[in-house]
Amino acid sequence: MGMYDNKFSKDVGSFFRSPVREIFKRVDLNAIYSFAGGYPSAETFPLEDIRRTMSEVIDRYGGKAFQYGATQGVTELREAVAARYAVPVERVQITSSSQQGIDVCTRILADPGDVVLTSNPSYLGALQSFRSYRTDVRGVSHQNGPGALREAYEKAISQAEADGKRIKFLYMIPDFQNPSGESLTLQERKVLVELARIHDFLIIEDSPYRELRYDGQHIPTMYSLDPDRVVHLGSFSKIFAPGFRLGWIIAHPDILDKIYVCKQSLDLCPPVFDQYVAAEFLGSGRLDANLKKTIELYKSKRDLMLGLLEKHMPDGVCWTSPEGGLFLFLTLPDGFDSVRFYDRALDAGVAYVAGVFFHTDGSGVNTMRMNFSFMSPERITEGIRLLSSLVREALDSKVSQ
Amino acid sequence: MGMYDNKFSKDVGSFFRSPVREIFKRVDLNAIYSFAGGYPSAETFPLEDIRRTMSEVIDRYGGKAFQYGATQGVTELREAVAARYAVPVERVQITSSSQQGIDVCTRILADPGDVVLTSNPSYLGALQSFRSYRTDVRGVSHQNGPGALREAYEKAISQAEADGKRIKFLYMIPDFQNPSGESLTLQERKVLVELARIHDFLIIEDSPYRELRYDGQHIPTMYSLDPDRVVHLGSFSKIFAPGFRLGWIIAHPDILDKIYVCKQSLDLCPPVFDQYVAAEFLGSGRLDANLKKTIELYKSKRDLMLGLLEKHMPDGVCWTSPEGGLFLFLTLPDGFDSVRFYDRALDAGVAYVAGVFFHTDGSGVNTMRMNFSFMSPERITEGIRLLSSLVREALDSKVSQ
Repeated sequence: MGMYDNKFSKDVGSFFRSPVREIFKRVDLNAIYSFAGGYPSAETFPLEDIRRTMSEVIDRYGGKAFQYGATQGVTELREAVAARYAVPVERVQITSSSQQGIDVCTRILADPGDVVLTSNPSYLGALQSFRSYRTDVRGVSHQNGPGALREAYEKAISQAEADGKRIKFLYMIPDFQNPSGESLTLQERKVLVELARIHDFLIIEDSPYRELRYDGQHIPTMYSLDPDRVVHLGSFSKIFAPGFRLGWIIAHPDILDKIYVCKQSLDLCPPVFDQYVAAEFLGSGRLDANLKKTIELYKSKRDLMLGLLEKHMPDGVCWTSPEGGLFLFLTLPDGFDSVRFYDRALDAGVAYVAGVFFHTDGSGVNTMRMNFSFMSPERITEGIRLLSSLVREALDSKVSQ
Repeated sequence: MGMYDNKFSKDVGSFFRSPVREIFKRVDLNAIYSFAGGYPSAETFPLEDIRRTMSEVIDRYGGKAFQYGATQGVTELREAVAARYAVPVERVQITSSSQQGIDVCTRILADPGDVVLTSNPSYLGALQSFRSYRTDVRGVSHQNGPGALREAYEKAISQAEADGKRIKFLYMIPDFQNPSGESLTLQERKVLVELARIHDFLIIEDSPYRELRYDGQHIPTMYSLDPDRVVHLGSFSKIFAPGFRLGWIIAHPDILDKIYVCKQSLDLCPPVFDQYVAAEFLGSGRLDANLKKTIELYKSKRDLMLGLLEKHMPDGVCWTSPEGGLFLFLTLPDGFDSVRFYDRALDAGVAYVAGVFFHTDGSGVNTMRMNFSFMSPERITEGIRLLSSLVREALDSKVSQ
């Protein structure tokens, strides 16, 4: 027995490592064809605008930009977020990353054993956080259409009630979901909000990709359907730059009050200088100008990837066609094991994330999450060609099956 | 019953607000004489050096500085911290503030009901974190000398054992403690490390002020006395600038591994650009050049404050004479209630933190924490004059007693 074996808390027993982050430890992302991360393309970071804005922040705020700040976030950034999303500023809390938004909501809402409902598959970082608090995470597979969705969730809710369990919240990424890339229709959103009302649980709406829409019309947020029951999480990572680690929570002030006190002991306040930079970027219109270019770039990359898959992937492989976001989701023939296949792909120089890791129940073994934002068009082209030939080879040889 | 009354987790019931942060919500720190915060003086932030360094980071790292980073922190900063404190880089985790270091250690080590030992008084933000996890926080009043210290801690340990409780760790700020400003001697550090070995618990050594020494000799860290049993927390907040929200943990790799996985779900990684700026500042020697000036400034402010207290405070008031850090601690005559007195002081335009808030047992009602780093010498002078006259008035009238 090691020196520390009896030292750790019970929560530690439920921690699990992100397989995505483990990939990043193992390989240099720039040395392989990587469809694995959820990384924005570095070329979307407006370096010269950022340099100028940083200098302006130093001129305008001086030492205040490097001092401790308010736990809720600096007023300028809260006001800019409130104005952008047309919500009262009392409903805005700035977070040290959108991941912190997920984590702090779980912390203030759920006790060990409480049920957290989510889609199956769902965002890995959220599953890590839910499990780290020893909650009972239950994934619901989505069928198309509001009727089927209602039925699937009603079944999960009845099951939880039959098990004598408390449902604390439903976690949902309604826009361009990670990992599937798919969105909920307005009708589907309404069904889930109605179920939350009937069965009296909250909804955490995680919305990092919402502004990256390439086709179709914006669909109302779940928050807009019931602002007192839905907690809305946002992020600067995909619309500005993840290196600032800034996000926000929009919620009823009674919920934000608990988050505020929790955040005091978590890290006192979000990074202050970075918040002023983000506020200036938002307020000056630089963020929107840059976002417009980012959307054009990612739309072209998505189109490129869809065309390449069509052209190169063997029969029996299918994929989602997302209207926005960073990911599409590949489904291979039954029996294909994308975890076993992974080492071969990585040896050949191409990375993805095995879909099973996003599933709450060990299903999705024949799926892969594919990112289209990170690499250049040239490398996407070569990477899809390579991956397709490896998949074809595996399907032909049946070695991976 | 409100809509959210049955929604929150059990932890929320143990959250308590920082009275210090509540003061900051209530008043504009620049409009009053504030001895309340633990704020560095904004004049110590080297704005032009920071501006130049930020521009250099953009030139050197480009988009990488704004991308997602490693959960452990960026290599350059980990290496700079490892070199500065002569520890292996595998023992360095960068945190999104030193407060996060305290919080994440509590999270991975303690279950509800576990005993956390600390000095009485102790750092308020640490008490918030410990209590938020529903631990059993037990403060030990320090008597001078290693023998008395051993006796006091042995008593607390025996009591915990008699109560059938598990001691998970001892939390200690050995250098220029917050709030008292006092340090542990080498002999006292050895006593505590020995007790931790005998009774098999860990020690969290929180060390944000260590490099701010104005007199006397550096005393070895508790970490150096037992690097496998002591977890050392550091911070850039007092030696560089708190607005970056960066700190570090130095610990055995088996402990860091749990912290690493926990941090994945907390916030993925620390702010990336800020880390590169801190690494450049450390590596270029700019941090040390600036720190030298900061130490001179704070030493002169401490001397000023000690002289003013001597001159203006009425008989019966005494205070600590710290060799470093940001605080000194005032003890008023028995019966003086510094919480009741607080409103009168604030109305007159002077703020401090009532000492009772740092105590684990409601004692210290007649004490005050006084910061000497934040204000200008002129405002320190006027503020101490004002506070002294208010104290004199209160003692004369006995109204506050």
